[in-house]
Amino acid sequence: MIKLSDYVIQFIENLGVKHIFLLPGGGSMHLVDSVGKSEKLDYVCNLHEQACAIAADAYGQYTSNLGVALVTTGPGGTNTITGVAAAWLDSTPMLIISGQVKRADMVGERGVRQMGFQEINIVSIVKKITKYAVTVTEPEKIRYHLEKAVSLARNSRPGPVWVDIPLDVQAMMIDEEQLIGFEEELNEQINQDKLNKQIRQAIQLLNQSERPVILVGNGVRLANGIKEFLELIDLLQIPILTTWKAIDFLAEDHPLFAGRPGAVGQRGANFTQQNSDFILMIGARLDFGQTGYNHKNFARVAKKVMVDIDPNEIKKMDMPIEIPICSDAKVFIQELIRQKNKIKPIHRTNWLRKCKEWQTEYPVILKKYWKQKNYINNYVLIDVLSTEMSENDLLVPGSSGASSEVTMQAFRVKKGQRVFSSHGLGPMGCGIPASIGGCIASGRKRTVCIDGDGGFYMNVQDLETVKRLNLPIKYFILNNQGYASIRTTQNNYFEGRFVARDTASGLTLPNTMKVADAFGIPSIQIKNHKDIREKVREALDLDGPVICDVILSFEHVTAPKLSSYQKKDGSFVSKPLEDLWPFLEREEFKANMIVRPIEE
Amino acid sequence: MIKLSDYVIQFIENLGVKHIFLLPGGGSMHLVDSVGKSEKLDYVCNLHEQACAIAADAYGQYTSNLGVALVTTGPGGTNTITGVAAAWLDSTPMLIISGQVKRADMVGERGVRQMGFQEINIVSIVKKITKYAVTVTEPEKIRYHLEKAVSLARNSRPGPVWVDIPLDVQAMMIDEEQLIGFEEELNEQINQDKLNKQIRQAIQLLNQSERPVILVGNGVRLANGIKEFLELIDLLQIPILTTWKAIDFLAEDHPLFAGRPGAVGQRGANFTQQNSDFILMIGARLDFGQTGYNHKNFARVAKKVMVDIDPNEIKKMDMPIEIPICSDAKVFIQELIRQKNKIKPIHRTNWLRKCKEWQTEYPVILKKYWKQKNYINNYVLIDVLSTEMSENDLLVPGSSGASSEVTMQAFRVKKGQRVFSSHGLGPMGCGIPASIGGCIASGRKRTVCIDGDGGFYMNVQDLETVKRLNLPIKYFILNNQGYASIRTTQNNYFEGRFVARDTASGLTLPNTMKVADAFGIPSIQIKNHKDIREKVREALDLDGPVICDVILSFEHVTAPKLSSYQKKDGSFVSKPLEDLWPFLEREEFKANMIVRPIEE
Repeated sequence: MIKLSDYVIQFIENLGVKHIFLLPGGGSMHLVDSVGKSEKLDYVCNLHEQACAIAADAYGQYTSNLGVALVTTGPGGTNTITGVAAAWLDSTPMLIISGQVKRADMVGERGVRQMGFQEINIVSIVKKITKYAVTVTEPEKIRYHLEKAVSLARNSRPGPVWVDIPLDVQAMMIDEEQLIGFEEELNEQINQDKLNKQIRQAIQLLNQSERPVILVGNGVRLANGIKEFLELIDLLQIPILTTWKAIDFLAEDHPLFAGRPGAVGQRGANFTQQNSDFILMIGARLDFGQTGYNHKNFARVAKKVMVDIDPNEIKKMDMPIEIPICSDAKVFIQELIRQKNKIKPIHRTNWLRKCKEWQTEYPVILKKYWKQKNYINNYVLIDVLSTEMSENDLLVPGSSGASSEVTMQAFRVKKGQRVFSSHGLGPMGCGIPASIGGCIASGRKRTVCIDGDGGFYMNVQDLETVKRLNLPIKYFILNNQGYASIRTTQNNYFEGRFVARDTASGLTLPNTMKVADAFGIPSIQIKNHKDIREKVREALDLDGPVICDVILSFEHVTAPKLSSYQKKDGSFVSKPLEDLWPFLEREEFKANMIVRPIEE
Repeated sequence: MIKLSDYVIQFIENLGVKHIFLLPGGGSMHLVDSVGKSEKLDYVCNLHEQACAIAADAYGQYTSNLGVALVTTGPGGTNTITGVAAAWLDSTPMLIISGQVKRADMVGERGVRQMGFQEINIVSIVKKITKYAVTVTEPEKIRYHLEKAVSLARNSRPGPVWVDIPLDVQAMMIDEEQLIGFEEELNEQINQDKLNKQIRQAIQLLNQSERPVILVGNGVRLANGIKEFLELIDLLQIPILTTWKAIDFLAEDHPLFAGRPGAVGQRGANFTQQNSDFILMIGARLDFGQTGYNHKNFARVAKKVMVDIDPNEIKKMDMPIEIPICSDAKVFIQELIRQKNKIKPIHRTNWLRKCKEWQTEYPVILKKYWKQKNYINNYVLIDVLSTEMSENDLLVPGSSGASSEVTMQAFRVKKGQRVFSSHGLGPMGCGIPASIGGCIASGRKRTVCIDGDGGFYMNVQDLETVKRLNLPIKYFILNNQGYASIRTTQNNYFEGRFVARDTASGLTLPNTMKVADAFGIPSIQIKNHKDIREKVREALDLDGPVICDVILSFEHVTAPKLSSYQKKDGSFVSKPLEDLWPFLEREEFKANMIVRPIEE
């Protein structure tokens, strides 16, 4: 016999999870006690459940195993929603365990809003943003629910799951021998014949191509297929483009790496993609940022093979996909490797060289950025960090605004580095808790977090957790005294009517140096290019955490990026991805196009 | 013709709402611009949408009109959930307006997790914790949706509503003349005959009673019936008990006020309630804290009349309700007053005197608390604040833990004071944003906020808003270096195994004085009873905000309170409400009982 709450914690230990993020509460008291008794599981006390969930999401992203958070009933659950939604959109394996009021006190069918103390029906709230959400009312089914939840969280297309456990159920004694398990229903069984055939067809298209390219996304990591992917590309020797979430699959100096294409992308990578005549997309869901809001113009002459575990991601595409393959990325890659003797040994040296040339000729970070006299250019910061960060460091950019866009566009990855964030939901406020979760998951590797000042303050309370655990996290806070992206929008679309964006329009933000001091964390201010490298080195070399207040110029422009133009009939049309703003001279532009440019 | 976003803001202006709490975003940009253009509506920039929602909830509680928050798509919405759930459980009229991705980009029936930039289907998340939640996809229906939402938010049993507006819809031009409105369906039409009859019956029971009492709850305020209620009790001259949410209906020195009964209540008030032979409950939903977890023993010899707008709140009761009246509280009170000639003019002077005696004989705040040499006793702080605060001040206690319980149990209200919090959900982290919302709603009246240190840090970023607006909010932060209620639980139920509750068990909290300093807010430390009064006065007298770091003793005990005991068969049973711990000598206890005590 075992106490149910102990069983839950042992179950988590047995998954190979080493840390759990929690904030204790009366409604989860048995579970909290069981965590305390555990010798294998360490717990991290965040100061807000929002931070628990985001840290668990980051932990799940780093380990590709499972991030786990434990929260109490009522507000303990509602506080996590942003982290859960982020994990849902980014397909991160995560488990939230919550306390619930005892079964007799649950509202049930009474039709009132609440019965128990701090009760809320959390399952009804998270149902649509989790793969599984259940309140465990039958203690003997605890194993079934946990196994089912974790199986769903980690398999097929991963995502968050939620197990809500009433207080009296937590406390019950159960007979482990008598528990029923969850049998995985392999209803989505892979049709091996179909897959083999599709791969044969894909190889035929590849064999006929002169300018093939692979666009790889996070689905490969989620399928635990990175090793196999590297084996595959070594075999194929064709240029590789990566999405933001796959940024760290290849180092910048990898001979096949051809950049990160997209709406806020790299001009060279976009030339590669748009001039390709064959594109194999593996585990990349191709959101609007990736397709430039215009599916029809996306790699428009390329024959397309799209591999995704979620058939709806392929069906949603508004362009012909010659070979739509619904498969786990790793299974696909392994089968493709198995059929390697069908692949023609074509040397596409010129094409590969051209792709590399585009990268060199059109760098994101321009020399002129360095010449700015006062304040920091965001790209210069990324340039310095790219050089100064070591192999095996972690990088956690903010999830929205410049801290995300500029970093993902410009950072040069070194071998062994890990880079991740939550791009789907793109919540402000991820920087602090995600860096905590990632740093802990990595075994306390040095972690760099680049965050906007607006986002930084959304979970500022958890600087206490960083300080308490003396985590080696280096915060670079982009100080532009307000919401930079709002400023841009209001400038462009609202005749410069500023609302809620800076001091003059009703918004102020705290003083970062003072806040660092209040939390007992050393701080460094970086405000010009003369000593930026020295100061970044100082921050990286310090033991423990440090907060750098990076004073940015108001004049920042994110470039290159996709632009739209107004047609004669007044409607706005996106430019194709190869033609990023600032626009090249037409001669130069045309010289880069192998594919015929679109007539305007 | 009018731009739709301008129409929305004008609609809000016309409701008499003067302030809107917002955090701008690309997905709400037209709405934000319209707010900026408005001359009647002021906007408050919180630093987190969580704070926007909680501030709007407080604004709704203060005004009994409507609190409004404006947020952006995706995380803008998910960040508000705790505030929305709090408003749902406390029946607070609140409107959240959110931006959504443009209609063409919405996920619709595609079966994928996301299409648009930072898209999430927020309606599916908040559906079960709002009275109405809609994404406005037809611009010509904007008036209908707004009118319906606001009608539902404010009428019948109030609560939060949500209107989600896609970016392209926000920007459209509409013809105001052509808009269809919402016709209120009076399907819950009051059956006036039935009400009249039930009131006649209630008066009969009252006429037969010797020890009648009224227990009044927040439903009376929500029905805008406080004036009528005061008229009624003046007529009846019987003792009045209030719930926590109705704490400020009567001043402590009101001749009919007999205290606040409950599980963490006042011993005298519980004697009054439990010895009554007639109890009229108006607009009080009677949660477990109010009924002592045991409906059968609640005012057990009293004939019961329960008035609630929500019939399910009456049906849920597990005790006989002689006259269950489903009615708006104000309508009920007005009708009862109309039938006043049926009420026998009985002078129950002795009963009233007895109730007042109980209050005097069993005060919550004991003289011995003052004798504590080191650190502050929480009850002493409330004693001092009760004396030193002025008429017309606001008091915003935290929503859970000691900051809530001790305050609601012990505070002595003065005429004109307003006191409110979110007791249903009871989220930590309400203190700062709720005090902002309340203070602004009141026209910047002096506001006292008592919060636990754990809760205080959950929205600490919004001290920036307090400072920016120089709001006269006086924070008294209960510093017990950790989670006091977790400590109590772990002491009582887990053999003192401490997990995640203090420095030794993996939890630390920031230094409040340093944090105050970082935000540029003056701070005062209060650590003994010698100068507590002087320091409280200093804080109250200061212009603008101030943060008091109140160092509490670890030895704090919340008392009196309901206790449970173990029966011979091992099960736990709650004591009846009249017999609070610490238990009186049996002689003394029996001397206070008019009703026969329960045999144990």
